[in-house]
Amino acid sequence: MLVLLLSCNDRPGLVAAAAHAIASHGGNIVDADQHTDTQHERFLQRIEFELPSDQEEGFRSTFERISGELEMTWSLHDTSRVPKIALLVSQEAHCLYDILARIELGDLQAEVGVVISNHNTHASVAERFGVRFCHLPVDPNNREAQQAQVLSELLSAEIELVALARYMQIIPDSVLAEFPDQIINIHHSFLPAFVGAQPYHRAHARGVKIIGATAHYATSDLDEGPIICQEVTTVSHRDTVQRLIQRGRDVEQLAFAKAIRLHLERRVMSYQNRTVVFD
Amino acid sequence: MLVLLLSCNDRPGLVAAAAHAIASHGGNIVDADQHTDTQHERFLQRIEFELPSDQEEGFRSTFERISGELEMTWSLHDTSRVPKIALLVSQEAHCLYDILARIELGDLQAEVGVVISNHNTHASVAERFGVRFCHLPVDPNNREAQQAQVLSELLSAEIELVALARYMQIIPDSVLAEFPDQIINIHHSFLPAFVGAQPYHRAHARGVKIIGATAHYATSDLDEGPIICQEVTTVSHRDTVQRLIQRGRDVEQLAFAKAIRLHLERRVMSYQNRTVVFD
Amino acid sequence: MLVLLLSCNDRPGLVAAAAHAIASHGGNIVDADQHTDTQHERFLQRIEFELPSDQEEGFRSTFERISGELEMTWSLHDTSRVPKIALLVSQEAHCLYDILARIELGDLQAEVGVVISNHNTHASVAERFGVRFCHLPVDPNNREAQQAQVLSELLSAEIELVALARYMQIIPDSVLAEFPDQIINIHHSFLPAFVGAQPYHRAHARGVKIIGATAHYATSDLDEGPIICQEVTTVSHRDTVQRLIQRGRDVEQLAFAKAIRLHLERRVMSYQNRTVVFD
Amino acid sequence: MLVLLLSCNDRPGLVAAAAHAIASHGGNIVDADQHTDTQHERFLQRIEFELPSDQEEGFRSTFERISGELEMTWSLHDTSRVPKIALLVSQEAHCLYDILARIELGDLQAEVGVVISNHNTHASVAERFGVRFCHLPVDPNNREAQQAQVLSELLSAEIELVALARYMQIIPDSVLAEFPDQIINIHHSFLPAFVGAQPYHRAHARGVKIIGATAHYATSDLDEGPIICQEVTTVSHRDTVQRLIQRGRDVEQLAFAKAIRLHLERRVMSYQNRTVVFD
Repeated sequence: MLVLLLSCNDRPGLVAAAAHAIASHGGNIVDADQHTDTQHERFLQRIEFELPSDQEEGFRSTFERISGELEMTWSLHDTSRVPKIALLVSQEAHCLYDILARIELGDLQAEVGVVISNHNTHASVAERFGVRFCHLPVDPNNREAQQAQVLSELLSAEIELVALARYMQIIPDSVLAEFPDQIINIHHSFLPAFVGAQPYHRAHARGVKIIGATAHYATSDLDEGPIICQEVTTVSHRDTVQRLIQRGRDVEQLAFAKAIRLHLERRVMSYQNRTVVFD
Repeated sequence: MLVLLLSCNDRPGLVAAAAHAIASHGGNIVDADQHTDTQHERFLQRIEFELPSDQEEGFRSTFERISGELEMTWSLHDTSRVPKIALLVSQEAHCLYDILARIELGDLQAEVGVVISNHNTHASVAERFGVRFCHLPVDPNNREAQQAQVLSELLSAEIELVALARYMQIIPDSVLAEFPDQIINIHHSFLPAFVGAQPYHRAHARGVKIIGATAHYATSDLDEGPIICQEVTTVSHRDTVQRLIQRGRDVEQLAFAKAIRLHLERRVMSYQNRTVVFD
Repeated sequence: MLVLLLSCNDRPGLVAAAAHAIASHGGNIVDADQHTDTQHERFLQRIEFELPSDQEEGFRSTFERISGELEMTWSLHDTSRVPKIALLVSQEAHCLYDILARIELGDLQAEVGVVISNHNTHASVAERFGVRFCHLPVDPNNREAQQAQVLSELLSAEIELVALARYMQIIPDSVLAEFPDQIINIHHSFLPAFVGAQPYHRAHARGVKIIGATAHYATSDLDEGPIICQEVTTVSHRDTVQRLIQRGRDVEQLAFAKAIRLHLERRVMSYQNRTVVFD
Repeated sequence: MLVLLLSCNDRPGLVAAAAHAIASHGGNIVDADQHTDTQHERFLQRIEFELPSDQEEGFRSTFERISGELEMTWSLHDTSRVPKIALLVSQEAHCLYDILARIELGDLQAEVGVVISNHNTHASVAERFGVRFCHLPVDPNNREAQQAQVLSELLSAEIELVALARYMQIIPDSVLAEFPDQIINIHHSFLPAFVGAQPYHRAHARGVKIIGATAHYATSDLDEGPIICQEVTTVSHRDTVQRLIQRGRDVEQLAFAKAIRLHLERRVMSYQNRTVVFD
């Protein structure tokens, strides 16, 4: 199965042009979804289709021509390829365990190229799941060097998706530039509530009745990147800060796993600091 | 704006054909969604598009021809038309109030042609909202005559959607036949749990921790019609039957209003006793 | 049935003291809930109990003595009394309709003493529900005079709960002082996200995947009062600002009605800018 | 910290008696919750309290006497004790991974005494988490012998909670009798909808818009035991059976983990085939 993602300025005839290109190569559309953002005059589409294997090259040529005429940005993905992902983690390891288990169980279609951490705490977890673990400690004097090592590891492992599984270090522009819309972070609050540090402490102090977690693409503005998905759960006056942290883990790992799945299935498109999720 | 709903057996070229037809009449697709049910080999699509007003007749002709070739079932809807609906109610009136308020506030785009009840209890409510009220009492001796009167009222008021707002009488086949996929019922349970009478009493007896409500198209099999939407809410051991009934009303009116909105916006297609909801 | 609400600094023996006082007057506890906030060393309790009618005076005397010894703050409420509430509204009327309908249907046990609005738009709604409507327009020159009129209306109608049903005017300190923890506001966002004006516009701009509403006690800090309950609903890239506003109404009226019910049933206690909800 | 669970027929003075007993031994109630089921005239209470360590024996004696007078059933639990649990699993292992990870991360306070499976598939998982794995295969000829082995394993490992983590074999009365209200099963549907086999297939066939999972105490009536907690998630026409199964895993493991936590924290009491959950 192939997935075609395309986006361009909105104009008449776009759907017909893409559908015609697929049909002309003997393809059959299995699923299609589209979105027109009238405010930004933007058209985005995801098409999942079958194509005779000897037609892929021809289709690419045809679509290259069409997309030039219609000024489209597009990409074509083969869903049978298993992408390589990196998991970055600090002390809190529930998201790490969850993603490793999901991949091992076949729930997520991915290969973990490397687990990177600024602590050595979870080396044994990676080992037990048969995954390479890379300990890159940070201190005030080596920050830039460590960031360069992280980038080097990601590149040498040919990583296609960087999943920040509660990694509490800043992602430098050098890494962001190399992986545009390919770094997913899980923030432990219902953004934009409680941007920044200690969201559960602040949620408790404010006396909220619902807490949440937000999975988003990382950008240079901390906690400000395009949101992919959010999960919430109800809490009460009985919940101490410690219990908010505990209950929050459930929604964190759920939102994180959903966002990774959506990304891997090529269901997420990003523009104007927002996402379109074709689910 | 126009909405085109189409369904047919799945085959290559369907999306291209519909998109081409719209483009060829100068139309512009604003929103499109589709679904291929591979199990039943069924293709369904909803297209929302703008068309130059002088092109509607031409488009209909074009599409009549295409749909014949591709054996499509289709319908075309002008979203600016305000459809007429009927509200049928027995004793519980929360859904009646809610829908009347939503229509008066412009939240739902519809005109209430008539409120029909087997009780006279809520005549004043209809009156206050400026809506015709029709009292058609039922007793064991007049059931069929009453059903004929209901049908007659619906037909004479040129009703396009029959909304059963907690109407506790059976809808006869004569009415069902006249309004296929145009009768929405709200059942006060999370179907298929607690089909039939007194769902809250049975939910309480079973000790469930979540209750729900289900809006579905009415069919001759009670509570077995295609489900449009479902809403749930958590409950606890503290909730008595009476409180389940009370809390259930919130999810009932929410599910009911959502289903009516989805139907009125032509976002629901039904086949094989299930719905596709293009939301 | 009586409801006793009490709060004091935490110390051993509190539960025994209250329970003993009730038992000593022949009372029977039907429901009791309590909370100890170890951080603030605060104890709060709600006891619902039956008492022989000739024992109420005696119980009050006994408890007056006990509470003095234990430095408790307490209040006793007869659940059979129907409290008088005021509804304040501006242009958006869905919460107004909802509360009026709930009271008329017996879903909420309250009497609407007055509907106050700075617009005349919804006079007919109040009239239809048989409720006094009071039009108190605001302009830059009469703000303080209008606020004084609002207070005067609330006092003369002997209002016990002021429900701000999307009332977009500031509540002055004079009113706040008169009704401590007796003014419930519905804010159309998931606080503390989107404090202030146009939350749906900002939620859309941020690209959130969940929106919400917050019912809270009004305080002099706008949108900063103790939160009583919050409701959320999922949204997607398909939802325009207009549709967020529309979908938000459902959670607004749900959160508002729940908060009013909780308050009327004496299930909410407030301290340290937070609430304990004994539900 | 100690947790006292008590239940008895409802009568005046119960709360005072228990509170007095605790106070008389210098105890301090930190959290208390109670429930009166007026229909069954049943009173249930959970009290969490601190007690000077030299007073525990005395308190037990005092309470033994009181409970005799008031015909109470009661139990006293020390929250610092780490209980031993068994995990039983067949082919689907997501709940197994999840509970093992939660225990390792300290999210659940328990020690896994043994993992028992009728398949050898997940032996390596148990091994990696340092947990004893016991393979007890079943075939039509050895069913009773296998059941006896399961019981023997549970007894010899001094198991206090048996967690059926998608274990697809029948639990015989011999095991049920040994572990009353100490066996938690996760059923992959929103009970009582889809009791029995293949719930996701049937949910798909019925076209439901929400699926769920139910954690309950196992009883001899399959899927009919007291419900502890339920979780749901929305689905759509896009979700195939395979995807329902996948999405269902998230709610299964969430409901299962919550139920185990509630049980381990002694927050669940069971009577009349229902639970009271003091959360």
